[in-house]
Amino acid sequence: MSTFKYNRLDKDNAAALLVDHQTGLFSLVRDFGAADFKNNVLALASTVKFFGLPTILTTSFEQGPNGPIMPELKEKFPDAPYIPRPGQINAWDNEDFVKAVAQTGRKQLIIAGIVTDVCVAFCALSAIEAGYDVFVVTDASGTFDETCRYAAWERMSRAGIQLVNWFSVACELHRDWRNDVTGLGNLLAGYIPDYKNLMTSYAVKQ
Amino acid sequence: MSTFKYNRLDKDNAAALLVDHQTGLFSLVRDFGAADFKNNVLALASTVKFFGLPTILTTSFEQGPNGPIMPELKEKFPDAPYIPRPGQINAWDNEDFVKAVAQTGRKQLIIAGIVTDVCVAFCALSAIEAGYDVFVVTDASGTFDETCRYAAWERMSRAGIQLVNWFSVACELHRDWRNDVTGLGNLLAGYIPDYKNLMTSYAVKQ
Amino acid sequence: MSTFKYNRLDKDNAAALLVDHQTGLFSLVRDFGAADFKNNVLALASTVKFFGLPTILTTSFEQGPNGPIMPELKEKFPDAPYIPRPGQINAWDNEDFVKAVAQTGRKQLIIAGIVTDVCVAFCALSAIEAGYDVFVVTDASGTFDETCRYAAWERMSRAGIQLVNWFSVACELHRDWRNDVTGLGNLLAGYIPDYKNLMTSYAVKQ
Amino acid sequence: MSTFKYNRLDKDNAAALLVDHQTGLFSLVRDFGAADFKNNVLALASTVKFFGLPTILTTSFEQGPNGPIMPELKEKFPDAPYIPRPGQINAWDNEDFVKAVAQTGRKQLIIAGIVTDVCVAFCALSAIEAGYDVFVVTDASGTFDETCRYAAWERMSRAGIQLVNWFSVACELHRDWRNDVTGLGNLLAGYIPDYKNLMTSYAVKQ
Amino acid sequence: MSTFKYNRLDKDNAAALLVDHQTGLFSLVRDFGAADFKNNVLALASTVKFFGLPTILTTSFEQGPNGPIMPELKEKFPDAPYIPRPGQINAWDNEDFVKAVAQTGRKQLIIAGIVTDVCVAFCALSAIEAGYDVFVVTDASGTFDETCRYAAWERMSRAGIQLVNWFSVACELHRDWRNDVTGLGNLLAGYIPDYKNLMTSYAVKQ
Amino acid sequence: MSTFKYNRLDKDNAAALLVDHQTGLFSLVRDFGAADFKNNVLALASTVKFFGLPTILTTSFEQGPNGPIMPELKEKFPDAPYIPRPGQINAWDNEDFVKAVAQTGRKQLIIAGIVTDVCVAFCALSAIEAGYDVFVVTDASGTFDETCRYAAWERMSRAGIQLVNWFSVACELHRDWRNDVTGLGNLLAGYIPDYKNLMTSYAVKQ
Amino acid sequence: MSTFKYNRLDKDNAAALLVDHQTGLFSLVRDFGAADFKNNVLALASTVKFFGLPTILTTSFEQGPNGPIMPELKEKFPDAPYIPRPGQINAWDNEDFVKAVAQTGRKQLIIAGIVTDVCVAFCALSAIEAGYDVFVVTDASGTFDETCRYAAWERMSRAGIQLVNWFSVACELHRDWRNDVTGLGNLLAGYIPDYKNLMTSYAVKQ
Amino acid sequence: MSTFKYNRLDKDNAAALLVDHQTGLFSLVRDFGAADFKNNVLALASTVKFFGLPTILTTSFEQGPNGPIMPELKEKFPDAPYIPRPGQINAWDNEDFVKAVAQTGRKQLIIAGIVTDVCVAFCALSAIEAGYDVFVVTDASGTFDETCRYAAWERMSRAGIQLVNWFSVACELHRDWRNDVTGLGNLLAGYIPDYKNLMTSYAVKQ
Repeated sequence: MSTFKYNRLDKDNAAALLVDHQTGLFSLVRDFGAADFKNNVLALASTVKFFGLPTILTTSFEQGPNGPIMPELKEKFPDAPYIPRPGQINAWDNEDFVKAVAQTGRKQLIIAGIVTDVCVAFCALSAIEAGYDVFVVTDASGTFDETCRYAAWERMSRAGIQLVNWFSVACELHRDWRNDVTGLGNLLAGYIPDYKNLMTSYAVKQ
Repeated sequence: MSTFKYNRLDKDNAAALLVDHQTGLFSLVRDFGAADFKNNVLALASTVKFFGLPTILTTSFEQGPNGPIMPELKEKFPDAPYIPRPGQINAWDNEDFVKAVAQTGRKQLIIAGIVTDVCVAFCALSAIEAGYDVFVVTDASGTFDETCRYAAWERMSRAGIQLVNWFSVACELHRDWRNDVTGLGNLLAGYIPDYKNLMTSYAVKQ
Repeated sequence: MSTFKYNRLDKDNAAALLVDHQTGLFSLVRDFGAADFKNNVLALASTVKFFGLPTILTTSFEQGPNGPIMPELKEKFPDAPYIPRPGQINAWDNEDFVKAVAQTGRKQLIIAGIVTDVCVAFCALSAIEAGYDVFVVTDASGTFDETCRYAAWERMSRAGIQLVNWFSVACELHRDWRNDVTGLGNLLAGYIPDYKNLMTSYAVKQ
Repeated sequence: MSTFKYNRLDKDNAAALLVDHQTGLFSLVRDFGAADFKNNVLALASTVKFFGLPTILTTSFEQGPNGPIMPELKEKFPDAPYIPRPGQINAWDNEDFVKAVAQTGRKQLIIAGIVTDVCVAFCALSAIEAGYDVFVVTDASGTFDETCRYAAWERMSRAGIQLVNWFSVACELHRDWRNDVTGLGNLLAGYIPDYKNLMTSYAVKQ
Repeated sequence: MSTFKYNRLDKDNAAALLVDHQTGLFSLVRDFGAADFKNNVLALASTVKFFGLPTILTTSFEQGPNGPIMPELKEKFPDAPYIPRPGQINAWDNEDFVKAVAQTGRKQLIIAGIVTDVCVAFCALSAIEAGYDVFVVTDASGTFDETCRYAAWERMSRAGIQLVNWFSVACELHRDWRNDVTGLGNLLAGYIPDYKNLMTSYAVKQ
Repeated sequence: MSTFKYNRLDKDNAAALLVDHQTGLFSLVRDFGAADFKNNVLALASTVKFFGLPTILTTSFEQGPNGPIMPELKEKFPDAPYIPRPGQINAWDNEDFVKAVAQTGRKQLIIAGIVTDVCVAFCALSAIEAGYDVFVVTDASGTFDETCRYAAWERMSRAGIQLVNWFSVACELHRDWRNDVTGLGNLLAGYIPDYKNLMTSYAVKQ
Repeated sequence: MSTFKYNRLDKDNAAALLVDHQTGLFSLVRDFGAADFKNNVLALASTVKFFGLPTILTTSFEQGPNGPIMPELKEKFPDAPYIPRPGQINAWDNEDFVKAVAQTGRKQLIIAGIVTDVCVAFCALSAIEAGYDVFVVTDASGTFDETCRYAAWERMSRAGIQLVNWFSVACELHRDWRNDVTGLGNLLAGYIPDYKNLMTSYAVKQ
Repeated sequence: MSTFKYNRLDKDNAAALLVDHQTGLFSLVRDFGAADFKNNVLALASTVKFFGLPTILTTSFEQGPNGPIMPELKEKFPDAPYIPRPGQINAWDNEDFVKAVAQTGRKQLIIAGIVTDVCVAFCALSAIEAGYDVFVVTDASGTFDETCRYAAWERMSRAGIQLVNWFSVACELHRDWRNDVTGLGNLLAGYIPDYKNLMTSYAVKQ
């Protein structure tokens, strides 16, 4: 018999780390279409906000070519810890960041960022080594091409990191539609056009 | 020497026809990712509205499985002629529609819809036969797969219909950035994430 | 002004030619998935039967490796002219076939078959030379790969042949849903799973 | 030497769980062509029925936008336990469902559904944690795109879940053609056009 | 009514030009898999030999990096005119080549080579200007990638050049299986594995 | 430090199992182009013959639609054990086959066949359970599509089976070019057109 | 007989127009990989410089988000006419640009730029209307995706514009290797890695 | 809690092995575009040079068809140990090579080469067995196609080898931008056009 233990996301035990979603770095992302990727990033942000998860933003060299954080993220989390790193590529090498993570008191970390193979992978690998349960959001993390993406996924998955898409995050946190039917419905409708269409078609028949 | 005459879009001579962008039919569209396609449709709608083009909406069997028009379109053009067709598949077979087109007084028709090979192609082929200059918006029109798409493009292009994407429509109508730098910039930023990023990066350096 | 004349399918003037849809030749078709392609072929067959179009079946060397005609086609058109060609690759080189076409009294020919670049293209090019209006059904015709497909399309389109998919054929023949709402709905539901889903979802809300 | 133990499907020890194959949710599936996916789902359903496996159907919010279960499934298993979940996203969070699974008395669970990364993955991860041997049917489970699919596969495979396609399920259950040559032949012919073609070509030569 | 004239290949009026199929240049071809492309080139060579068409070989700078002609071609046509061009990129700029073409007395030219956009396109465009009927063999001509391929096809097709694959060439020249059933069967079986399989399966049943 | 032990192919300890490469089943293979796949199968066959590995052929239902073994394989191994299975889908369920494998006295099994997810995977999983070291040849094994392929790879790889392509097999068995430069060169040239080209270009300069 | 006239590039009659290859706009280009596209642009620039063609550079809003011209282009053509357009999207709407073109005294215009469907297409369509022979360089022009690219190609090709890749431009201008073997060899080696490899392998054998 | 230990690249403990990047073998690489692959190889070479890592070059049969090492590599590491192997396919079978690796005194080996599944995989599997920590650079290693690539990745990853792309190598070695902002910036700008563009756009605004 398997000894597998299903470690599932728990809204009382999870925090979100959004790493280097900056307007310059965004132009490096070519493993997703630009509209798709932006939609995914905002969907994840809205998801973690909907569940009230502690969320930490961090950036790398905002003053330089990497550019500022996507303004939509800053606006969505005006009071979140915000750690502009002075130089560390791996956010986990930044003490303030590690402290901010610890202060959330959460053991499950949901991580996404740009680029998958560096800012996401390095941080995720350090976090799991530090004893956290790590969930990397595959479709809110982008990189140069699919070759880079799949190698990074493999490296992380072998380390015990769970690969999830934003929709899985939303559903695994929510558990039961009855916790807030309207809330989850609106969240999904906002970022999944097909779901919005189903809701519109349905409503008209009522 | 070529005798080619460049018939370019003119904001004083163009009208837009949005055909059957309905929430049920939308689920048939699989030659674009859903988020991409919705983005393109709204981008085209915002473009023709930005230039104040006469715009006509039409739908097929809204009460049945095809579903209602995408609500974003209805909201964007609350006063536009709206022709729910009682049964005609080709909108041009509907007299009210043809009349509404004629009443715009425009000779250039910008057409997009669902699906490319039927509701778009039939209407476009009839319109060019009727003497209009026809521009089909390739990325705001969707269909079952790329095989259907490319055959429909070929059929239309051979008939003299011009194939354009929504960004070309916006730029060909605008002609010169100086006509409204901020307006065009905002339009592009709203639907092209890469352009929004360039603007954000640029602004921060000012 | 364009001098384009929209030559559209007319159920009183069209006939269908199904060329070499044989079980051996089917294994050569690799530009479509096998389930998709079979679905398309049967959809076209059901479409032309729904509209009662004169239909002609022809095969090449049924006794040899090419195999017998797909049994579903034979069953659907038990009384249709059936021309097993003794050797001619181009069906138009077979007098009985040309005569059978003439006897339909129709001017518009809807052609599909295996493979696109040979049995379909040769027959279609001969038919348009002979003065017929020719419509090749792109997704009910298959060949070795997309390179072969697109070259054959180009050759045919330059000759004035119209490229259409089976769904366009159905809609262009039907013209108006009111001619038979249930009939067309059932036809589409039978071969387009997404449309069937829309109808099922819709029905349950009634 | 490897200590690997080949846990293979056994028709006396397996049960099937069909999760949320609903007509609304189906429109979210875009990692397969629609005709292919429907064919795969029905093939799996026919397979588990052919072997007489205990089968459980469950749905999520049938009354809302998710839509009713695909009618073909309901018809094929009129007497199977049918668990419409009032809100739980993970079917394993529903006591009736878990009980129904236990009552089959089977240890091997064959799971498929919509979408792969949520309704399938959550249920499968819970089931393996509960001590079952879990087989997820990759091609009868669908989701938004290939990125979502492969991440979900990885998450499940790491947990010890076996990934199988419907054809593997059929063959691993059947073991030996001699158990029922005609039965298996007809099953395969019904859903694999290439196999049907081989059978037709073969029959004609007899 | 269309005025289209179907100009089809005629074995008594066609000649073949094989342009720059050299072992060095072959490494530039990346729009086909290497095994596929080699198979296509040899298939075309065997086809034109089967029909006894006058065939001309030409190469560019064999002594340098471009490398020698593929040895299989030289062996297949030991007595064909062989024009190693001292420098002209367009074979039609070489008088000996143009003369050799004229001496065939044929009006239809079947052209293939490496790379599609240069050695093939230039020669084909010159040949049609010179009054020949030109057929370019799409799958026995290779280039850097699909972008280069499709632009070259478009340039040639607009000029009136017909795009055909080698299988179309074989079938259009043969006209009727009865002219030599065994010969054509063997030709196809040699280069189309699926056809060889059909023949083997068929033979065993006899 | 890793405890990994590199278990590499050894020509004195390896045997080859070619499973169900039959002319009917070949038409089911659509995850490779047909010419590519046939080239790979023959390349593997020539490789194991070149190294004189004990080789076993087995087939499933040769008399029925599955068709006879590819004749090239039968001709290449006229004296190899040949096990036509009367019904067992998993060759390891056939006692004669298991005995024949044991009689080779080899511990390393190189397995390829049609289809990857059934005839190959079932046999490979049984073989590793039985204590053999198993190497599945990825590109000489084919199946319905890439979705089926990758799920089967994952299932086998998790079980400890090594995934190798035929070129790896050849090189890992050969170890050192000096063991037979000409022999290996000819083997590679026969199935890798790019390598043949390199050799031809090189030879001409000597 | 065809009346086609092969209008080929002539180094004494051609000029090059490089339109809006700016560092900001470059991030919009996603129909090519970034390294490939940059390689192509520099290859075209080196080609037209090698042949000494009159070359004109133009940019759109260099001071804003579009960014400055790629510095490699400015360095390569320090003395070329340089037209920073104050607002016109279509360069042909800028009188200085049209005058600069006229002053080259050339009739053949080689045009490339960003993006294909706007800055390239608009300028090219105006130029052919003005009586120039227009050649658009397909692989040194980029846009949002392949859908946008192919629609723009179709629009331009129908207008009589020739679609060529940079390698065709180089070869059509050069005509005969003997005009400068070393020069052309170095040009190709600089931008085609496969050709550089052929030259290196060849040189070592001398 | 996971017991995962993040073994990350350390510039004081890493060495680089560049295996068989030869001009003949390069033509076998078709899982990357040629310009992309060359760019990646040079990027990795520049990266390991930038960090002053001990680097070893090795080749297989330089005098034969495999061709000489890419000259850019030889020039970049004129004083590096250079091991032309007389015949061993696996570099680890060559004593001089193993000794040279040992003499670096490093425990972390960064390996790239041609082809991924043979020269890279064999060497990497031997190195990890010998007790080294092994990092294979996925995008500076090439092979015949993606099928070969992914099977080789899987074989290596299962053995505990980490899969990284060159950009990850650069960033993991660098750790902190402040160690050398200009140096790293120039390294990235040299091989990532999008990053160069960001830097150029940024500089102009200063």
